[in-house]
Amino acid sequence: MLYQSLDNPKIKDLKKLHTHKYREQKKMFLVEGEHLVLEAFQTGYLEELLLEEKTDFSLPVETNYVTKSVLKELSNLDTPSSMIGVCKMKEPANKIGNRILVLDQIQDPGNMGTIIRSAVAFDVDMILVSEDSVDIYNSKVIRATQGLLFHIPIRVCHLKEQIVELKEKGYPIYVTKVDGGEDVRQVDKQGKYVLVMGNEGRGVRSEIMELATNYLYIPMNQKCESLNVGVATSILLFALKDRDDSE
Amino acid sequence: MLYQSLDNPKIKDLKKLHTHKYREQKKMFLVEGEHLVLEAFQTGYLEELLLEEKTDFSLPVETNYVTKSVLKELSNLDTPSSMIGVCKMKEPANKIGNRILVLDQIQDPGNMGTIIRSAVAFDVDMILVSEDSVDIYNSKVIRATQGLLFHIPIRVCHLKEQIVELKEKGYPIYVTKVDGGEDVRQVDKQGKYVLVMGNEGRGVRSEIMELATNYLYIPMNQKCESLNVGVATSILLFALKDRDDSE
Repeated sequence: MLYQSLDNPKIKDLKKLHTHKYREQKKMFLVEGEHLVLEAFQTGYLEELLLEEKTDFSLPVETNYVTKSVLKELSNLDTPSSMIGVCKMKEPANKIGNRILVLDQIQDPGNMGTIIRSAVAFDVDMILVSEDSVDIYNSKVIRATQGLLFHIPIRVCHLKEQIVELKEKGYPIYVTKVDGGEDVRQVDKQGKYVLVMGNEGRGVRSEIMELATNYLYIPMNQKCESLNVGVATSILLFALKDRDDSE
Repeated sequence: MLYQSLDNPKIKDLKKLHTHKYREQKKMFLVEGEHLVLEAFQTGYLEELLLEEKTDFSLPVETNYVTKSVLKELSNLDTPSSMIGVCKMKEPANKIGNRILVLDQIQDPGNMGTIIRSAVAFDVDMILVSEDSVDIYNSKVIRATQGLLFHIPIRVCHLKEQIVELKEKGYPIYVTKVDGGEDVRQVDKQGKYVLVMGNEGRGVRSEIMELATNYLYIPMNQKCESLNVGVATSILLFALKDRDDSE
């Protein structure tokens, strides 16, 4: 089928997936471009493919065609690609794993995406995200993950409860602190961890800070007060992985 | 003096500093907000301060006032701050130092800014930037550096010549390579290095790649093809610093 009208109810409905609220309600989201569409397909997220008319591409899923103007309407890019994937959210598995990354109120989509990408790179088993963080299905987040969003379980939840539970199970709770923490390179070797990272400006909120078992810091030149949160998270995950590899 | 008109020649002139070409011609650039203005002042970059009328703030530099509409005209932010600093570029010192970061065609302003911030954090002595990279005085770059642009010498130059010269002086030339490099955690300890990082999509161009003395990689999960360039650079600088600290 070819959709040509911006007033088509289905197109209007899909466009509403640009809002967090509607994505949450429908448990659906959009991805753009061949790379993300393929990643979504391979990991079982892709429900439907929308191709610009005359695009030579196929996947074994429901496929429909749209005109350039419809594609533009559904796109979040200045230069829309020739395809959009309609994806279904998946509930993450219950198995929590050994390496847990907790994100408290990350606001910038680029940072969130970068962190998700690095979490896959450094073998994080599960990401827990606070309810007031930027939506992980925001198109900018998805683009910044480079498709790795589909390769890691992410649970949006009330963080405090979850961390208390993990702490009771014996996970060390690592929180970063500029002054008075342990150098991340010196942290005791151990099989599992919970690493908590906070908001770009305010850091980790105090009720979560209090749950820490260890405060960590990244040694750096004193001219620099802090690192970008995406960078800091990635370095910590690298350093924690580093440690395990050498066991 | 209070500038009220968008047609004032001085205001029109300052607005032209939004373009790379004009910044290069005048050797001037703008910064916005108290934090960046203070950093520029403390490091000797600030030439003139423009305050929104009635703003209570002072520094011992030439200060003029502007109306809200003039401020908005000169601002690159959706919500302009109450002050803009007019800064003069400085020639970096000739002394090159021991830890050199080379950036080949970095295009994204956020990545460039993040990398500059991390370079200060991990004690880089000098950054060399290719002429076809994003302009380091672009307002998004400056914001992403969090003011650390003013704390590190950066030279925009023809990279190949410079790297050849550094190689002749005995610097190891590290370039990242996904397959077949050395694990960055295993690199020989040595006092100085040149680390070359490349474009977000294409990596380091081949004529520079050929100059490498060592290929490095960051060990990561094979699901992840690569990291964000700001993250990868920061991890490498951290790992290289790490190594020196333990000597």
